[in-house]
Amino acid sequence: MAEAISTPAVVVDIDVAARNIGRFQAYADAHGLRVRPHIKTHKLPAVAEMQLSAGAIGITCQKISEAEAMAAGSAAIRDVLLTYNIVGDDKLAALRALAGRIKVSVVADNAIVVDGLSAAFASAEPLTVLVECNVGADRCGVGAPEEALALARRIAAAPGLVFGGLMTYPPAGGVAKTEAFMAAAKRLIESAGMPVACVSSGGTPDMMRAHEAPTTTEYRPGTYAYNDRSLVARGACGWEDCALVVLTTVVSTPAPNRAIVDAGSKILTSDLLGLSGYGHVLGRPDLAVDQLSEEHGRVVASGPTRLQVGDRLRIVPNHACVVSNMVDAVHVVRSGAAPALWRVAARGKVE
Amino acid sequence: MAEAISTPAVVVDIDVAARNIGRFQAYADAHGLRVRPHIKTHKLPAVAEMQLSAGAIGITCQKISEAEAMAAGSAAIRDVLLTYNIVGDDKLAALRALAGRIKVSVVADNAIVVDGLSAAFASAEPLTVLVECNVGADRCGVGAPEEALALARRIAAAPGLVFGGLMTYPPAGGVAKTEAFMAAAKRLIESAGMPVACVSSGGTPDMMRAHEAPTTTEYRPGTYAYNDRSLVARGACGWEDCALVVLTTVVSTPAPNRAIVDAGSKILTSDLLGLSGYGHVLGRPDLAVDQLSEEHGRVVASGPTRLQVGDRLRIVPNHACVVSNMVDAVHVVRSGAAPALWRVAARGKVE
Repeated sequence: MAEAISTPAVVVDIDVAARNIGRFQAYADAHGLRVRPHIKTHKLPAVAEMQLSAGAIGITCQKISEAEAMAAGSAAIRDVLLTYNIVGDDKLAALRALAGRIKVSVVADNAIVVDGLSAAFASAEPLTVLVECNVGADRCGVGAPEEALALARRIAAAPGLVFGGLMTYPPAGGVAKTEAFMAAAKRLIESAGMPVACVSSGGTPDMMRAHEAPTTTEYRPGTYAYNDRSLVARGACGWEDCALVVLTTVVSTPAPNRAIVDAGSKILTSDLLGLSGYGHVLGRPDLAVDQLSEEHGRVVASGPTRLQVGDRLRIVPNHACVVSNMVDAVHVVRSGAAPALWRVAARGKVE
Repeated sequence: MAEAISTPAVVVDIDVAARNIGRFQAYADAHGLRVRPHIKTHKLPAVAEMQLSAGAIGITCQKISEAEAMAAGSAAIRDVLLTYNIVGDDKLAALRALAGRIKVSVVADNAIVVDGLSAAFASAEPLTVLVECNVGADRCGVGAPEEALALARRIAAAPGLVFGGLMTYPPAGGVAKTEAFMAAAKRLIESAGMPVACVSSGGTPDMMRAHEAPTTTEYRPGTYAYNDRSLVARGACGWEDCALVVLTTVVSTPAPNRAIVDAGSKILTSDLLGLSGYGHVLGRPDLAVDQLSEEHGRVVASGPTRLQVGDRLRIVPNHACVVSNMVDAVHVVRSGAAPALWRVAARGKVE
């Protein structure tokens, strides 16, 4: 069937994705963890439905515009956590409109954001707000449990808002740090008389160790649905667990040890995630994708590549999530069914 | 007007783009060089029209799908060079259809591609094919003037094809190499009785030195229309010549020396082009964009950032071309006119 696909193209093996989704759900169920997958990886309402059917309690989005697209694409998507500080009158109006249609909760890591949310929701149904905590990734998040308490108090006191708990996006390998911060923050906040209904953590690399941070009640894996080269490199999965590949055609063999394929940064992206090279050619561990331009990928080998113009290769990208965002549609394959083209409903939601 | 734009967003100052386009056209006119701009940078039919009005003889595209979108978007676009090896029956059929509507020429660097083009065009109006030459970038291209001669002979002898000349995309700093290769190849081919109607070179970094490779008859600059941080770093332009910026909002100030903006890799991309960091914050040379996630950009300073949640920043990206591809539309500003939203017609043409 791959012969009928015009390259370069993103091909998703939905059976592999279903297996990945089921595996983590079983783990979470065994440990009493709620699952709220981050849809940034696939941006497909149909895959979110698979995750919800498997047992997820809702989904995670990073943007209102992505949540809008997901909710519009599936009647099953009715509970979204936006793990982002919402700033600006335009965004707050969109958030209020979305919250009128489905259950939405958000996070905040500073008083300006809390006050903006409160002003927008003072005359609406109350909005649940979690405090984002920085346990070591040094992106967003309050830096200490005492700050989490102060912000929780501000949320609880703010008209239109309900304090919903704690949220973090830990660095890879940050399980112990997550537990130390979240347990201390939860204790402080509960001592102050506020229940901490939810402690939400995330990240695919350490998802199978989530139980080592037992304060966590909810987990938000994203990449786990597809996996990618970065996760194989971390030992989190094997190549057979990678559901998403970029199908590409050799267009030039200018030297014995060099071939050019039609997959460049416009589909593989320049994300390295600490790796060397831009993807793994399935079945050809001797090849490296050492350089990308927008429409060219350079494939090199220490010896002859043995590639011919017209050959097709399947490349596992370094980072699956960003690849989903590059295409308007993905080719979905599964056993026993005809291949299908699925529109990436939440692609390109920039604003 | 920027206050009305929802962030993150791409903002293009079309007056600056017009000045950039005019400056290179004047240089090319003074040196008798034809200009065929690469539209990958803007992907906007209206900017291609500005380039044609300034004096360009046609445009360059990397993909048939981009050429289709550009031709559909402007009646002025009637001459396209596709600087890509076209491989596969689907692509060849699309190429033939396009060649029935506008003037199209292509390149080839190997016999398989030439034979495919010949089979597709044997019963159509003849297709002009240039030989792509590798003068040092080590991407596509024949590796020696003798190979260029052999491929020129094959094109000239192939039913449905016309040999149109030579094309290269040189490495930065490769002006002398370009001249050496192209002059030798042209001499060889002309000695064999075949006229070399066009010698096409490209690349913005060295465009103002194009006359130092006098065999060149046509130049294909791309990024020059917008410029970017990589070109400022090379000394090719100043910040005031950068027509494209990413407008972004500060959403978090979790530490005195760290702020988070809502522009991540989904709009700035991970392209580094040899630089450190992911963009230049206009007016704030003390800040660095040191880390991107998909929806977060981390802005750091050695001292306090003095940024507040809600502040807006304008970031010149490392690479303008890839940023154009990330958004469905750009906000166009110009003096004396209302801001406008222009749809990026040739965005996301992956296949």
